[in-house]
Amino acid sequence: MSEGKYRFQLINAFRLSEEAGFTLRAWSGPKETLIYNYQDVAPSLSDVTWDVHPGALATHGDWPVEKLEEFDIVGVNRLPIVRESCASGKYNAIVLLGGGDPSYLAAREIGRNFGVPVTSCAHAQMNVARMLGRRFSIVDISETHNMRMYNLVMQYGFIHECASIRNINFPLPRPAYSNEPSIQDEQKKALNGERSEMLEASLTEAVAAIEDDGAEVIILGCSAAFWMQPPLQRRLQSAGWEVPVLEGTRSAIEMAKLLVNLGVDASGLMLPSERPKKVRRRKIF
Amino acid sequence: MSEGKYRFQLINAFRLSEEAGFTLRAWSGPKETLIYNYQDVAPSLSDVTWDVHPGALATHGDWPVEKLEEFDIVGVNRLPIVRESCASGKYNAIVLLGGGDPSYLAAREIGRNFGVPVTSCAHAQMNVARMLGRRFSIVDISETHNMRMYNLVMQYGFIHECASIRNINFPLPRPAYSNEPSIQDEQKKALNGERSEMLEASLTEAVAAIEDDGAEVIILGCSAAFWMQPPLQRRLQSAGWEVPVLEGTRSAIEMAKLLVNLGVDASGLMLPSERPKKVRRRKIF
Amino acid sequence: MSEGKYRFQLINAFRLSEEAGFTLRAWSGPKETLIYNYQDVAPSLSDVTWDVHPGALATHGDWPVEKLEEFDIVGVNRLPIVRESCASGKYNAIVLLGGGDPSYLAAREIGRNFGVPVTSCAHAQMNVARMLGRRFSIVDISETHNMRMYNLVMQYGFIHECASIRNINFPLPRPAYSNEPSIQDEQKKALNGERSEMLEASLTEAVAAIEDDGAEVIILGCSAAFWMQPPLQRRLQSAGWEVPVLEGTRSAIEMAKLLVNLGVDASGLMLPSERPKKVRRRKIF
Amino acid sequence: MSEGKYRFQLINAFRLSEEAGFTLRAWSGPKETLIYNYQDVAPSLSDVTWDVHPGALATHGDWPVEKLEEFDIVGVNRLPIVRESCASGKYNAIVLLGGGDPSYLAAREIGRNFGVPVTSCAHAQMNVARMLGRRFSIVDISETHNMRMYNLVMQYGFIHECASIRNINFPLPRPAYSNEPSIQDEQKKALNGERSEMLEASLTEAVAAIEDDGAEVIILGCSAAFWMQPPLQRRLQSAGWEVPVLEGTRSAIEMAKLLVNLGVDASGLMLPSERPKKVRRRKIF
Amino acid sequence: MSEGKYRFQLINAFRLSEEAGFTLRAWSGPKETLIYNYQDVAPSLSDVTWDVHPGALATHGDWPVEKLEEFDIVGVNRLPIVRESCASGKYNAIVLLGGGDPSYLAAREIGRNFGVPVTSCAHAQMNVARMLGRRFSIVDISETHNMRMYNLVMQYGFIHECASIRNINFPLPRPAYSNEPSIQDEQKKALNGERSEMLEASLTEAVAAIEDDGAEVIILGCSAAFWMQPPLQRRLQSAGWEVPVLEGTRSAIEMAKLLVNLGVDASGLMLPSERPKKVRRRKIF
Amino acid sequence: MSEGKYRFQLINAFRLSEEAGFTLRAWSGPKETLIYNYQDVAPSLSDVTWDVHPGALATHGDWPVEKLEEFDIVGVNRLPIVRESCASGKYNAIVLLGGGDPSYLAAREIGRNFGVPVTSCAHAQMNVARMLGRRFSIVDISETHNMRMYNLVMQYGFIHECASIRNINFPLPRPAYSNEPSIQDEQKKALNGERSEMLEASLTEAVAAIEDDGAEVIILGCSAAFWMQPPLQRRLQSAGWEVPVLEGTRSAIEMAKLLVNLGVDASGLMLPSERPKKVRRRKIF
Repeated sequence: MSEGKYRFQLINAFRLSEEAGFTLRAWSGPKETLIYNYQDVAPSLSDVTWDVHPGALATHGDWPVEKLEEFDIVGVNRLPIVRESCASGKYNAIVLLGGGDPSYLAAREIGRNFGVPVTSCAHAQMNVARMLGRRFSIVDISETHNMRMYNLVMQYGFIHECASIRNINFPLPRPAYSNEPSIQDEQKKALNGERSEMLEASLTEAVAAIEDDGAEVIILGCSAAFWMQPPLQRRLQSAGWEVPVLEGTRSAIEMAKLLVNLGVDASGLMLPSERPKKVRRRKIF
Repeated sequence: MSEGKYRFQLINAFRLSEEAGFTLRAWSGPKETLIYNYQDVAPSLSDVTWDVHPGALATHGDWPVEKLEEFDIVGVNRLPIVRESCASGKYNAIVLLGGGDPSYLAAREIGRNFGVPVTSCAHAQMNVARMLGRRFSIVDISETHNMRMYNLVMQYGFIHECASIRNINFPLPRPAYSNEPSIQDEQKKALNGERSEMLEASLTEAVAAIEDDGAEVIILGCSAAFWMQPPLQRRLQSAGWEVPVLEGTRSAIEMAKLLVNLGVDASGLMLPSERPKKVRRRKIF
Repeated sequence: MSEGKYRFQLINAFRLSEEAGFTLRAWSGPKETLIYNYQDVAPSLSDVTWDVHPGALATHGDWPVEKLEEFDIVGVNRLPIVRESCASGKYNAIVLLGGGDPSYLAAREIGRNFGVPVTSCAHAQMNVARMLGRRFSIVDISETHNMRMYNLVMQYGFIHECASIRNINFPLPRPAYSNEPSIQDEQKKALNGERSEMLEASLTEAVAAIEDDGAEVIILGCSAAFWMQPPLQRRLQSAGWEVPVLEGTRSAIEMAKLLVNLGVDASGLMLPSERPKKVRRRKIF
Repeated sequence: MSEGKYRFQLINAFRLSEEAGFTLRAWSGPKETLIYNYQDVAPSLSDVTWDVHPGALATHGDWPVEKLEEFDIVGVNRLPIVRESCASGKYNAIVLLGGGDPSYLAAREIGRNFGVPVTSCAHAQMNVARMLGRRFSIVDISETHNMRMYNLVMQYGFIHECASIRNINFPLPRPAYSNEPSIQDEQKKALNGERSEMLEASLTEAVAAIEDDGAEVIILGCSAAFWMQPPLQRRLQSAGWEVPVLEGTRSAIEMAKLLVNLGVDASGLMLPSERPKKVRRRKIF
Repeated sequence: MSEGKYRFQLINAFRLSEEAGFTLRAWSGPKETLIYNYQDVAPSLSDVTWDVHPGALATHGDWPVEKLEEFDIVGVNRLPIVRESCASGKYNAIVLLGGGDPSYLAAREIGRNFGVPVTSCAHAQMNVARMLGRRFSIVDISETHNMRMYNLVMQYGFIHECASIRNINFPLPRPAYSNEPSIQDEQKKALNGERSEMLEASLTEAVAAIEDDGAEVIILGCSAAFWMQPPLQRRLQSAGWEVPVLEGTRSAIEMAKLLVNLGVDASGLMLPSERPKKVRRRKIF
Repeated sequence: MSEGKYRFQLINAFRLSEEAGFTLRAWSGPKETLIYNYQDVAPSLSDVTWDVHPGALATHGDWPVEKLEEFDIVGVNRLPIVRESCASGKYNAIVLLGGGDPSYLAAREIGRNFGVPVTSCAHAQMNVARMLGRRFSIVDISETHNMRMYNLVMQYGFIHECASIRNINFPLPRPAYSNEPSIQDEQKKALNGERSEMLEASLTEAVAAIEDDGAEVIILGCSAAFWMQPPLQRRLQSAGWEVPVLEGTRSAIEMAKLLVNLGVDASGLMLPSERPKKVRRRKIF
């Protein structure tokens, strides 16, 4: 695996056990099954030589990530995989999967040591959204995850571009809350052409973001919502709204290609080396 | 010319007469000669099927563009070429050449009617810079051109990301000012390995932008300065500054590829259709 | 016409043919008929010696301007008239008519060469609104025109002062859309004391801007809406809202007087001369 | 005194005793002598029917105002004069003299009850500066007075437009500091064509504001510095800087004319009436 | 009264006559009765040795303060009390009571001369709110008082943190408006467990601030609303909203303790001394 | 340990081995020795019943933390200690030691589950600085650590309040760089009354922050720099600069007291519970 213009390592945010009962993607098996919305992402990978890592086994619990503590834990678990992938010399970019970008900045800092660009889904979506309009809104799944996205918007400096974060209130499963509606059921219904309340709620919130919040582009927060990109885009289009809808995986892959083609990864002034040859006396905002 | 993943029309900002005495690029001839810094851009075009338009013959005078009035005039002259290129059905993206983005928003508005993304050098550089760091500075050639860039930063909403616009004071030639140093001489010197005051000034200002203004990425303003990207990048690197330097042509080409791959052009809420099916009651900032 | 404290040239944004069927103002004839809302503007012109230019004949089509491309085209068409007016030596200020300020910055750049201040309707309204309150909203006629105003707010740097742009959805006429309600009919109804849906919609949106968006002043976008200033002001007042409503023509005329009286036109640091005696190393935001 | 288009009451910020030894203006006598820089202001008053009030006798001490406490005290002392002037029915605008705008918002609130616009020097300068460029710097006399100007910039919402406040360090006289250089001596020197260190310092700081801070317009802080407008403008001009310099008195007078001509005073949503007929549920920023 | 870690002087904003008919607090008598919501504040004072000044007798009229003019007047009336309290040497902090912070900056300037920190209710609430969340909303009593709070938000630089100011429309009493609902009646009802429309309106607006405006913390504007802190906090909590509600008196007392413990009062660069030993050439924003 | 008004658990950011050769504080032993600048902090702890945890043993390496990756790792290592401390019921606040706030938001999220406020040094300093002036600068030790602070400023939303981050270039020790100047030597020199280049550099940068960047308050970044607070404060004072200097430990302790006294921890809208009773449809900025 050393030929090809693009040689990417994709790395999932975490891996659950088979017993976790969360089946939006597989935890092992053929690489295609390890990516949430592979059916939609496939064209973006067609000119890429790629591997995908299933993610480090979750140590925060056997359920998907939603709280800040959990994001921090899985983020740190992933960093050694990032380092190994860079050190292997096999890849010219790393694509971090998952909607909430756990430990993205640290991963990018690692990548810089190797001259390897690292992209991640929320960061890539925000950057692509910026190309398409002045302001975007995030449609996301739950109060907790929404505020994770809020933190990312703050961290990445998109406060003036983010019109709002909209909550469709379909939280990720947790053992203690067994009677909640399930995102995987919603996805199945939608893919089967049945009515999905999750998709309907997303449409409602996307329209509200357009009409009330000044959004010009819609992006999706949690990777468990990325499957909605095609149907949500179609529904908005058919309702008469000429607004792009993005999702994270393709955004991160395409941003990685752009960085590879331009021969850049990240500024060493944003993510300094251990002992940079030149240092600044001051940094202003 | 209908095969290939990327089918791009590049369009220069304007065309002068052969007598204009401005020889940084050709006004006619083989397509490669029509692009300012083709030697640097070639890799980005290697997977693209492309044409380049020499630009509409300048009607503001027979000298390169620097004043707002001149930008407006050449911008409007280019719009019919944009429309024809879109209408031809031959291209899946339009790349506007030239540093100061004359009539870019109107060109993009035209592109939207055809579902064809349109990119431009300043806008693309700012967006790519955003991916690499939190703040960028523009190194540019003259007071007049600098303030054009300032207007673009305002128009595109990058006021929080633009740390400064730095002036190296090598204005474009005008008949009335015949004794000024010439950018084409500077380029020749630099390419010949001789000392170029223009490049030295750019290094000085880029370092000042880093040390004083908080810049984390350097972009170049005028297309007549794009040739400096490789040497300026090398000089900064060898001085110990780990900072990416961009130029516009590759940024615009690569951004066009990204948009093509994601199947998006621009938000219809930013650049509305003539009679959109759905309209908003309000737009906020 | 060389006496008087104020000697102003007013210049319309464009001129249509008599067949265009757009009769909110005349395209030729007595100067008073060439101004949209002359009845309201007359007091502001009573101490001015003034000429009015009907505008360059439209080259974008025989309909009023609403799209960015059209704004760019008519803007460039007007620039020679601005230059001639300045060069004539007859005027101590130029007032650009029309709501969307086509090529205002370039026109102002030209004016600076002659030491002649140039004002324009949107820019003047925003500046006057700033004097009266902290935030203003723009009531405007259509999605397309609204986004033109949005661009102006960005360009002029009023993003913190503009609370919202409100859309009453009465687009300007275009040949392809013959069955739409007509602004000139609305104006007639309103002036005749009949109910005008356009005025009602403006009231609704102005109140929404006050109640929801934080607006403290209302300004009007398109010059085809300027006639509403007196009735909208009255309606808001009688509804109990103590909020100033502005329109562009008087704002631009009065701002021109202020500039004349203070002996200033525009900063040469914002709109530099061709070869300024002094140049800056940097420009920050 | 009821005829004329403009009938203005000018009100000084305070009045000292004859013993105060501060002679930049008179405390009693012909109205022309009561205005700091009458020689420069006269043309702006030539079409105005005007009175000037010498100001309430200072109760904070017998020296000019520089500290926040002193500004608050003289501001409150002036409010009854504002009310009486409005109530007299003789004036269609009130112009508050003095650089630091003591109690301007309260004075404007009073004016609104009578439908009388009230203008003030700092507020007017900032608004006029906004018309001429995107950013202005304030050249002012002392650390204490500078921070008063800072507070006004915050209060009026010009933080994005104010590039900097520059300090020339010529504080106003106080009994406890008898050996300091005197502004009135500086003024005399300058008017006599001698070198004035105060003027030199202003030039130095104005140039620094242009070169370092991004200022496009210069305004003056304290009214005791207003006399420098003409020489500072000339010095900058002759040094090659094409930058407008304003001072407060003319700015406030001309802004008052503009408000009178447009028939507006201030938004009742910014400065509400005692019991407005309509109230809002919320106010956003 | 010289022992104890905290020796605070509390100073009311003003004092009315006994005939004023405003009985939310006493104007004379035991010190506990002079504080609006003493029952809630008592724990914060339990480790403080404290005096309370009833406030200077009101000179603006015999009714509570709501207009800007009235705030300016009572603010200046209080300054001598601040100075005397500092000069007495008895106190290590001054706590200014009242919601709208009349002349707070000037009072703090006085305090600095003595090295005595001065806190005030609105300023303290905003600072504490900042510690608990990213954005706060102010629930306040009337259009006039709301805009006073707006001015304070501007003055203190909290425009990015203040999500909105919400109006419950229970204005303070004025002789001319005798039939209005009374805040003191509302307080009685609420404390008696009866339905208070004022409290209901506050709940409605607090929820709207949370749901619509992005507020994460609720603060109260007028001191006549401070009594609502406990019931409003309970109501929001029982409705499921996990949002802190603050009021000013405790916030100002606790902030004073923090400043005393850290040995700081205010920056001399924000509130300069009369003749500081060191002065700056410039101040930027 | 259940009595007392304040019962605090202090938790260090990490613990190194005895062999690490980093002796600014102890890794085990009497609790007083576990705190960097105990001598300065003692008064703030005098009314607190407190424990201190030495920190989880470092797993990133046996050297102090400076890179983002390292911050993430030690942050996650500390979270179980935070949870145990909260769950023990012994403490009414948690104070996180260390300058760069590793995993502070996640720790605070944990604290909220128990109703226990959690404070941290950078966050507390920024909040206290906000109380003392409008803008602060951070004086910090190295390019890498400075950019960590930059990230915190972004994350906490203090971009408008942070004037600059100043770099004195005394990085923390790493095995690979054995010849660098040592902070512990600098501290010893300074405490012995000898010249410390580290302190001199801090003075230089603090003055530059005041004179050039608009800082009104100085805060310190890395906890290894906290010892400089008293001498830096004295040096600035004796140089004539009336500017408060803060450090993190006392700021975090005093902020914890304030939160305890007001009975608040953090907004549940900023850090939502797992399944909040009420959820919002949107969150805006």
